[in-house]
Formats: sequence, C-alpha cells, structure tokens
Amino acid sequence: MTQNSLIKVGFVGLNSANTLAIKTHCQAILQVSADFEISAIYNDNIQESLNIIDRLSLQDATAYPSLKQLVSNSSIDMIVFSSNGRPIYDSIMSVLDNIREEENQVKYLMFEWSFNFSLKEAEFLANKTMELGIQTIVSLQSRKSPYIIRAKELIEDGSIGKINSIEVAGNANWFGYERLQKSPAFLYEMNARRDIVSYCFGHTIDALEYMTGSYFSTISSMIFNNIPEQTLVDDMGNSLGTKIVKNVPDHLLFQGKLIKGNVPVSCSFKGGKPTKKFTKNLVIDIHGTRGDLKIEGDAGFIEISNLVLYHSGVKVDLNADMEDPPPAGQVIYNTEDEVLEFFHYRNYNALVGNMAKMYQSIANFDDRKNGRFQNVSPLAVTEQNIPSGPVPIQGLQADGFPTLLDALALYRLVENVYKSNAIGATLNVSNIAQYP
Amino acid sequence: MTQNSLIKVGFVGLNSANTLAIKTHCQAILQVSADFEISAIYNDNIQESLNIIDRLSLQDATAYPSLKQLVSNSSIDMIVFSSNGRPIYDSIMSVLDNIREEENQVKYLMFEWSFNFSLKEAEFLANKTMELGIQTIVSLQSRKSPYIIRAKELIEDGSIGKINSIEVAGNANWFGYERLQKSPAFLYEMNARRDIVSYCFGHTIDALEYMTGSYFSTISSMIFNNIPEQTLVDDMGNSLGTKIVKNVPDHLLFQGKLIKGNVPVSCSFKGGKPTKKFTKNLVIDIHGTRGDLKIEGDAGFIEISNLVLYHSGVKVDLNADMEDPPPAGQVIYNTEDEVLEFFHYRNYNALVGNMAKMYQSIANFDDRKNGRFQNVSPLAVTEQNIPSGPVPIQGLQADGFPTLLDALALYRLVENVYKSNAIGATLNVSNIAQYP
Repeated sequence: MTQNSLIKVGFVGLNSANTLAIKTHCQAILQVSADFEISAIYNDNIQESLNIIDRLSLQDATAYPSLKQLVSNSSIDMIVFSSNGRPIYDSIMSVLDNIREEENQVKYLMFEWSFNFSLKEAEFLANKTMELGIQTIVSLQSRKSPYIIRAKELIEDGSIGKINSIEVAGNANWFGYERLQKSPAFLYEMNARRDIVSYCFGHTIDALEYMTGSYFSTISSMIFNNIPEQTLVDDMGNSLGTKIVKNVPDHLLFQGKLIKGNVPVSCSFKGGKPTKKFTKNLVIDIHGTRGDLKIEGDAGFIEISNLVLYHSGVKVDLNADMEDPPPAGQVIYNTEDEVLEFFHYRNYNALVGNMAKMYQSIANFDDRKNGRFQNVSPLAVTEQNIPSGPVPIQGLQADGFPTLLDALALYRLVENVYKSNAIGATLNVSNIAQYP
Repeated sequence: MTQNSLIKVGFVGLNSANTLAIKTHCQAILQVSADFEISAIYNDNIQESLNIIDRLSLQDATAYPSLKQLVSNSSIDMIVFSSNGRPIYDSIMSVLDNIREEENQVKYLMFEWSFNFSLKEAEFLANKTMELGIQTIVSLQSRKSPYIIRAKELIEDGSIGKINSIEVAGNANWFGYERLQKSPAFLYEMNARRDIVSYCFGHTIDALEYMTGSYFSTISSMIFNNIPEQTLVDDMGNSLGTKIVKNVPDHLLFQGKLIKGNVPVSCSFKGGKPTKKFTKNLVIDIHGTRGDLKIEGDAGFIEISNLVLYHSGVKVDLNADMEDPPPAGQVIYNTEDEVLEFFHYRNYNALVGNMAKMYQSIANFDDRKNGRFQNVSPLAVTEQNIPSGPVPIQGLQADGFPTLLDALALYRLVENVYKSNAIGATLNVSNIAQYP
C-alpha cells in the first residue's frame, strides 16, 4: 500500500485520560501502520486533542475544533468513537448528520463495546448508518483473539465432538471489596455501562457465542450487589481508611441454552478479588463428546487478556478423501488416538494484539480487489458472492469483524439478563439476533 | 456395650439385587458391629430374604414372612427401608400401622435418599412418625464424609473468611451417551426418583447446605434431556449395537442465593461421560474473602465418593485469649500467613465409611447417659439441654444425623427445582426448611 492508500482515522474521545483507548486503539494502529494512520482528533476541549497529539507524537494528526470540521475533512476514511465513560451518543449523531449533509466519504464508523447509550438509541444508530451506507465496526475484539479463533476452529472441525455442556467462571476487577483510588468514577455508574453485566459478561458471552457458532434460546439470571461499600486503596493496594458506596452489581449468575444443540451453559461472574487460589480469574470449560477445551486467563477480561487454550480430543482428518466424503455433519477422524495440546504465546500482548487484528481485518476488507471499500462481505465470501453494500452483520462466522448489528444482538442479550433478574423469569431470547 | 445392648436392625428390601444396600448398609453395620447387628429381614418374597442371609452369612438374622411379624418381634430396635427402585411407601405405612397397633418399641426408622414416593406422602410420614415418637434417620450420608465435615469446620471457624461465591459441577453416571446393559431399569424411571435432580443433585446440594450452614432463599433451574437415546454397552463398555430410549433428564443447570450472606451458587450437573479431561467428575469451589475450599471427587456422587479437600486460607486462632474475646462474629487470626493444605485419606472407602459414621452417630445418640434412646438431641446438646422426645430435625448443625424433616426440606428444594424449570420462573424457597 502506498502512503496515499492508508486508511485515515479520526478519533472522537482520544485524550490523556482515556488510557484504555491509548493502550488499545493507538498501540494497535501502530502495529498496522502499513494500513492505517491517525489523522484527526476531536475532543470537546481542543486542548485535550493537542495534548494527546503531543504526548503520543501523532505527527499526522490534526486537532479539530468541531465535529463538523472533522467530518468535512474529506480525507478521513474512518471515525473511531471512544467514550471513556462520557456520554457519546450526541457526538455520534452529530457526526452522522454532518456526513449526510456533506455527502462525505467517511466509510467506517467504529464503536467500543459496551455502549453508554440505550438499546433504542443503538437501534436507531444501526438504521441510520445502514441508510447512509456506512460500514460499522464494534470492538468486540475477543473475536480476534488467536485463542478464541483456535477454539472456534477446533469446535467447528469436530475435534471435541458434539458439545455437551459449558461452564464459565470469571472474576471482574473493579467490583470487589477494594477500589483503587485512581479508578475513574464512571466504572461505578450504571449509565456508563461498564458494569459486570454489560461489559465483563458481555465481552465473554460474545466470545462464547462466536466460538460455539450459536446464540442462546433461553436464559435466566440473578444479579447481586453483595458489596455495597468498597475500601479505597492506593496504587500499592494499601487501605486509605475510607469506605466508598458502590451501587453497581458485583455478581452475576447466568444460565442458558444455546440454540445449536440445546447446550447447557452455566456462568458465574464475580466482583474482583475474592481469594481464588485454585482457579484462574477466567475459566471457560467446554465439554464435548470426544474432547474438551479449557480456556484460562489470569484476568477476567477475555477481550484484553492473554489466555491459555487447552485441548483434549481427537485428531480430525481435514484432508480426508474427498471422493468419498462423509455424510453431512459427520467428521472423519484420523485415529481414535487422543490429542492433548495447549496453545499459549507467552509474549502475546492481547491488549494490543486483539485490537490490531481487528484493524487488520478492516484493512483486509478494504483492500480486497485492490480497491478501497469494495463492499466485500466480512462473511465467508467467495469471488462469486460479493454483496453490493456495506456488510450488515458478521454473525457468528469466522471471518470478518463484528458490526453494529452484532453488537445489537449482544445488547439485547444483556438487556434480557437484567430483565430476567428483575422479573424473576426465564426468558426466551431466540429471536434477538435477528435483523432489527 | 454388651451383646444384649446391641441395636437390633431389621431390613426391609435387603436382597441380592440390592447391591447398593449390600455395599453401604451391610458393610457399614459390619464396621460398627460393636453397636449394631442385623436381626431381621423382610422381602415380599421370603426366599429373597433367605438367600441374602445365606449369601452374607447373617447368622443373627431371621427372615420374616410378613411385615407384621417383623414388627411384632419385640427385639427389633431399628428398621431400615431400602427400596432399590421398588415402590416402598405401602411397606412403610404397614410397618407404622403395626407399630401403633402393637405398641411396639421400634425406636428408629431409617430411610434412603431419594424417596420414591411423593412429597405429600413424605410429609404424612413425617407427621405419623412424630405422633408415634419414632426417631427417623435419612441416609444423606455425605454429612458424615470427613471431607465435608472438615470443610464445614473450616467455613465455620472463619478459615476462608466470608463466603463470596460457590460453583458446583458434577458428572452423574447413568445418564450419558451409554447405558450399561446390567443397569437396573428403575434408574431410568422418573417415579423411582433416582434421576439426576432428586438423587445426584439432591445429595450434593444437601452437602453444600450442610457445609455452609445455610438453606437457599432463591433458586432457578433448567433441566435438559439432550440424550434421548443411549447406546447399550456391556461391562467392558463395548457397544452392543442397540439403542435404548431415555426419558429421564441428563442435565441440570441450577443457580441460587444462600440465605446466609446472600451467596451466589452456580451449579451444573450433567449426564455421564462427556469427556472431561481437565476437570474431575465432581468439583465444588467455595470462594471466600480470605481463602478458598475446593472439593474434588473422581465420581459425581458426593455421598459415596472418596474426595479431596483443598484449603487455601488463613490460620485461625481457636485458642485466642478468652478474657478478651473478639466482637461477636469476628475471628482472631494467628497471623496473616497463608495456609495451604489438603485432606485426603487414600484408602478411605467412602461408600462404606460415610454410612458407618451415620450408624455410629445413631449409636452415640442412643448410648448417651448409658441408656437406650434417651431422647437426646442430635443438635448441639448440652447436659442441661436435653429434649424430651425424638429429635425432629438436625438442621444444618454439625452434630447428629439427618432426619425425615431434613429430607423434607431437601425434597421441597428438589420439587422447586422441577417447578422452576417447568414454569420458567425464579422461585422464593426461603421457607421450605420450616417445620411442616
């Protein structure tokens, strides 16, 4: 790619306080700098934009005083919205209005999971971006984790047989007995939606649906706030002798049935730091009729954690004689010999790496046929099967990247999790992944 | 104890087909032969009684041709009912009627969990035995497991701090992809109540309530029959090429809140033999603010399995200076040093041992004050605090043995588990452990 064909990215909400965006988006774009550059930055206060450009030496980036001016810069291909807890919906709408008015060529809008605006607003946003022919991306980046992708392959190729049951246990920092004094307040405000259900469970259950290739048919949940006060601690974990009220939940129990195979899924997500000597902070056990997968992480955040994937199962012969293929849905096993293997890249920086792979998949999509934005589906695409517009949804296909419609399916699941707890009912969620 | 003061046991339903009763009750009584002897046996067919007396060399036992005659033998102190899948309620009622009519001195009636009669019938039975002043015992014998008792002690003395959350995963044989040809049919008949909910989950959740000292306030469940056909296999596990229909469930998802501490409990119980390379067939994780307990078993049957108990936590000073006791509910820790220990008796035969300890606790109760049936409570009893009749309920106290009222509390929980699944609702079960 020549310099001119770089995908030019404008950021809304990148500033020095937004440490997660710096660690994920900015570092990721550095890793894919052959395809992307950061060209523009907008914050409500332009000084914040100037500061971050200076701090990160973003030499190609301009600080814009208004969203209108950022959009009217015709060289911007992609706008990334990073809220860091601040309300962001109005900014998104303003960008869309400006794109429409100026018939601007902005092709990609990227949003971070989880959304700090309502499901209705998210649905409106999905419709509006589709009207405008804009390709959306949502950073459900665990779908780009090499461990999650490998697990998905092993499940799809039959290496563990038919899935029998799944257990998930996660430990979410922030919501335990202690609170870091420097923690941003929005982590403890329900409206910011960085709570244990929307954010921690959301990322994890999306990864689980992606791996298994199935949404849920039925769910039930219980949500707890058993730790109504946290002890403030300094960076070293020393108590500062002050208690602070916590209103957001610290525990989620979730159980459900996957549509595919009616598989039982049991899930327990808890606030940070009960002692957990004998288990990791994230454990996903997938039991099949011919083998198991176990995914472990030191931190309970699947989308940014380096993981370990264990596989016990059978070798699948992917090169079995195609002149005599097995009946549909059946698999040819090389032998009945057991395979026992694990996958771990010791130096893999998942915080950056998963996001870099997300950007890379956008570049791959964009690059196809040597052009820009050829409207190629991130779904399993053949040369004969190129859709004529932006791709509405990745679904649970391996390829591509999650879009706003994928995020809507997840958002509806999260809303049903809250609802199940609130009304004390098991809920049918078979249809929430349908188009809006 | 002299020979004359042995507790004389009559068995209803002990026969050669009842292999579990032979392996548990009979072997257990051999271990406590200083206190018990098998004196009488009744089966509908007297030849079955004669056969088992011969096979087990039960030299002190008489085969009775009728329940009436068995009861009228005034030397019988205790009658044990073992159904082995056969309907047993009428026999129990017949025994009770005969006891009433003959003003017989039978003091103990022992029943096996789970009951193959209805909750209403069990409640009637509880009332009737109380009227007659008979002490009931139910073989929820995991309460006698040394691992469960040790875990209960560690929880009660504060060694893991305050419980934060619990996860349970169990694997129940019988209900998986294969069925042993020799398996008795009643395992696959709902009325026999040897299903995954009543039997496997029932024993396990009773142990959990006992360990934590808490019943549930709220529960929700999903029950599956994902394996509607099983492959018949021989003793070596080789397929016999035949499929057999299975109507009983093979998976239970359960979640709930303990009354004490509002603790979230997540539970997944599954049919036998999905591959489970990376976990044991029974795993209970109890996470506390100062430590963890992990209980593991090779088989998913907590009441008859040898277990391993892992403890990570803090040393509690049980001998802390009593002249300056800590505030109520607080604990003095020797140090903040971590303890890491595990408990495992390699040669412990839990199948026999737990039941033997159950019988031993009856003998201890019976022996107190050097008399027989002194009506001493299996609850935490002091010399000043001796109840005046049979003990209605053990509750979740450490000492004693579970009675029919304990089993009723469990039966009601099990019925609510079925109901929650059937009506798709989260249920309040705060009051099910109350007296009937």
